[in-house]
Amino acid sequence: MNVLKCNGERLWQSLMDMAKVGATDKGGNCRLALSEEDRAGRELFIGWCREAGMSITFDAIGNLFARLPGLNDQLPPVVMGSHLDTQPKGGRFDGIYGVLCGLEVVRSLADAGVRNERPIEIAVWTNEEGARFTPAMFGSAVFTGSLALDTALNACDSEGVSVRQALESIGHGGDAPFQRPFDAYFEAHIEQGPILEDNGLPVGVVTGGQAICWLDVQVQGQSAHAGTTPMALRKDALFGVAEMAGQLEALVAQFTPQGLVTIGQVNIAKSSRNTIAGSVTFTVDLRHHQDEQIDLMERQVHERFQQVADARGLALSIERHWLSPATPFDGDCVEAVRRAVHALDYSHQDIVSGAGHDAILLARHCPTTMVFIPCMGGLSHNEAEAIDPQDARKGCNVLLNAVTERTQR
Amino acid sequence: MNVLKCNGERLWQSLMDMAKVGATDKGGNCRLALSEEDRAGRELFIGWCREAGMSITFDAIGNLFARLPGLNDQLPPVVMGSHLDTQPKGGRFDGIYGVLCGLEVVRSLADAGVRNERPIEIAVWTNEEGARFTPAMFGSAVFTGSLALDTALNACDSEGVSVRQALESIGHGGDAPFQRPFDAYFEAHIEQGPILEDNGLPVGVVTGGQAICWLDVQVQGQSAHAGTTPMALRKDALFGVAEMAGQLEALVAQFTPQGLVTIGQVNIAKSSRNTIAGSVTFTVDLRHHQDEQIDLMERQVHERFQQVADARGLALSIERHWLSPATPFDGDCVEAVRRAVHALDYSHQDIVSGAGHDAILLARHCPTTMVFIPCMGGLSHNEAEAIDPQDARKGCNVLLNAVTERTQR
Repeated sequence: MNVLKCNGERLWQSLMDMAKVGATDKGGNCRLALSEEDRAGRELFIGWCREAGMSITFDAIGNLFARLPGLNDQLPPVVMGSHLDTQPKGGRFDGIYGVLCGLEVVRSLADAGVRNERPIEIAVWTNEEGARFTPAMFGSAVFTGSLALDTALNACDSEGVSVRQALESIGHGGDAPFQRPFDAYFEAHIEQGPILEDNGLPVGVVTGGQAICWLDVQVQGQSAHAGTTPMALRKDALFGVAEMAGQLEALVAQFTPQGLVTIGQVNIAKSSRNTIAGSVTFTVDLRHHQDEQIDLMERQVHERFQQVADARGLALSIERHWLSPATPFDGDCVEAVRRAVHALDYSHQDIVSGAGHDAILLARHCPTTMVFIPCMGGLSHNEAEAIDPQDARKGCNVLLNAVTERTQR
Repeated sequence: MNVLKCNGERLWQSLMDMAKVGATDKGGNCRLALSEEDRAGRELFIGWCREAGMSITFDAIGNLFARLPGLNDQLPPVVMGSHLDTQPKGGRFDGIYGVLCGLEVVRSLADAGVRNERPIEIAVWTNEEGARFTPAMFGSAVFTGSLALDTALNACDSEGVSVRQALESIGHGGDAPFQRPFDAYFEAHIEQGPILEDNGLPVGVVTGGQAICWLDVQVQGQSAHAGTTPMALRKDALFGVAEMAGQLEALVAQFTPQGLVTIGQVNIAKSSRNTIAGSVTFTVDLRHHQDEQIDLMERQVHERFQQVADARGLALSIERHWLSPATPFDGDCVEAVRRAVHALDYSHQDIVSGAGHDAILLARHCPTTMVFIPCMGGLSHNEAEAIDPQDARKGCNVLLNAVTERTQR
């Protein structure tokens, strides 16, 4: 294999130039989906793509495709991409890194005089973040057919502006067809977690996305006066919830290290300092790489919580709010990334994506995988989000070689 | 001892007549302190008192005193009382029972032709509930000198109306002196807890008020993504709080049955379903009959919580929000109640008041005690608050005989 190298300084410069669009005081970015700042960021990117000999199309939900023709231009394209929108106080790399790595791959191929057999495209998916409009990732969801176009177009932000209106006002709608064939989709992204950094590795070979199960739990006891009710006569829902939380920790220890459990929200109804909690609701977030394991975790949550509730005379209700099955990435694509990493002789590890990404949706449409690089402290969705320029370069080199191999097939 | 009996039907009728003032749809009462409804309730009571040969005075915070002259009218009065104000969705008995028992005692003495040596007064303390104005119990607090008059007068409700304005508008201010000598103070009250009902007893001999310690706890971990952060790298503040709650339950088991612990409020900063809790605050309510025991409980909370925090790499801060020492009631008054209970041959038990009452403040001013009767399910501060008319009668008989003995001393 002929190992190609990108221009790390150019990549970094592009990242820094893009970070000037919608820059925040604290060194982050605010480019909410389909806002004026998002338009400006997209236009900057479009200019760079045109300079690189690419043509631009949009689809009806505002997904942006920059296309470099292939020698055999009738073949389905090899697509790279991610998103340029950010959280209100977002970082400079979440999403942006994947888009600008795509551009750097195209530029590097030109530098090396390598002509691509298949067309290459860079996709900028609309509203990955879900910060201004919900649901998140609706650009790739509409493209891949898992969300109706009208549903997305009718979504409104907190000021009542619809996606349809916002899209018209930035002028980035078009008629590129949804669900057209892709040969493969590769998304480079910051890990948004601490694993690679903790292990001192510059690159993660992403083998898939984990299963996610969200539960809504309600525990009903008896609200009463904190000063007049003997302990033995109480049905304190809060102490019941605390024991359930302990059971959840005990449970996850049996699923180490792939199982994850989080209680992100707890609400005591009509809470007051001197009132025994009568009704408590809380959320449970379960994650695992394997569907059968997350099913098992969910069943054990039911069993363990019910035991706690029964022993305390509490009423329990557990509702599944959402279940997203595990998403194994395409074996050929993962192997292409692995070959690139080996050819470049980078230390690395396999990793499963813990966060949602456009690639998780694309994986149901075409052969898909991702490349991760570390981010400092695992910090993301934060203005302080930071990456090492050397890691940025290495991740892009992996993408460059994997995509080049794929496009020459 | 010559055992006197009240007129239980007349007492019940007074309670039901008072309950028509500010009645709510669901059978409760809304007579917020110093509101038009509170005025109407007070005026109804004043009319009954005048019919019973009593004179009316007010002090500058609106406390109302109905006075029956004594044969030796220069002696300090024996005072009964409680409050007529209610929670926004309060019950028909909390406070009202103590005031109307006072009236029934005066009426019963007249029926029996018993003349009182000492003057007898019935006090209606202003704003016991603290629902419209804070702090609660400011009428008795100002009378007994533990709160400055101006502080109470300047307190405002949620619509910006001051106590001074509200008091002027209902015309119940006066110049009766604060801190004038009382021979004794007796307050009959519903238990507002389940102990008497649980033990099947109509009367509780109240020996004092328990100590209360309120703590504000903050636990600081590290907020992070629920999907990308391995369990081993987490500093999940919520799981730490859950373990602390478990420690609190283990702790209180060592202080059975007098110790009480409650976590009434829990707040996860910037909580979201898929974010690990970085910072959690919660309240702890500790109660015990004895000051030295509540001190010990508080010290053990510090020790146990710190151990949990240290083991989990969490930062911990515990601040004492409030400490109210235990209030032993006057031995002579308690014995007078006990003699009355024995003379009447009522089954009963000693009990410590778990809730705050005007009597807790009066106990620092004069010999004081309380008489409790059961309330159904321990329910109070609720429109469904209910008592058995036979218990109401029995409690009033106890008050009648204890006060009569005291007034003839």
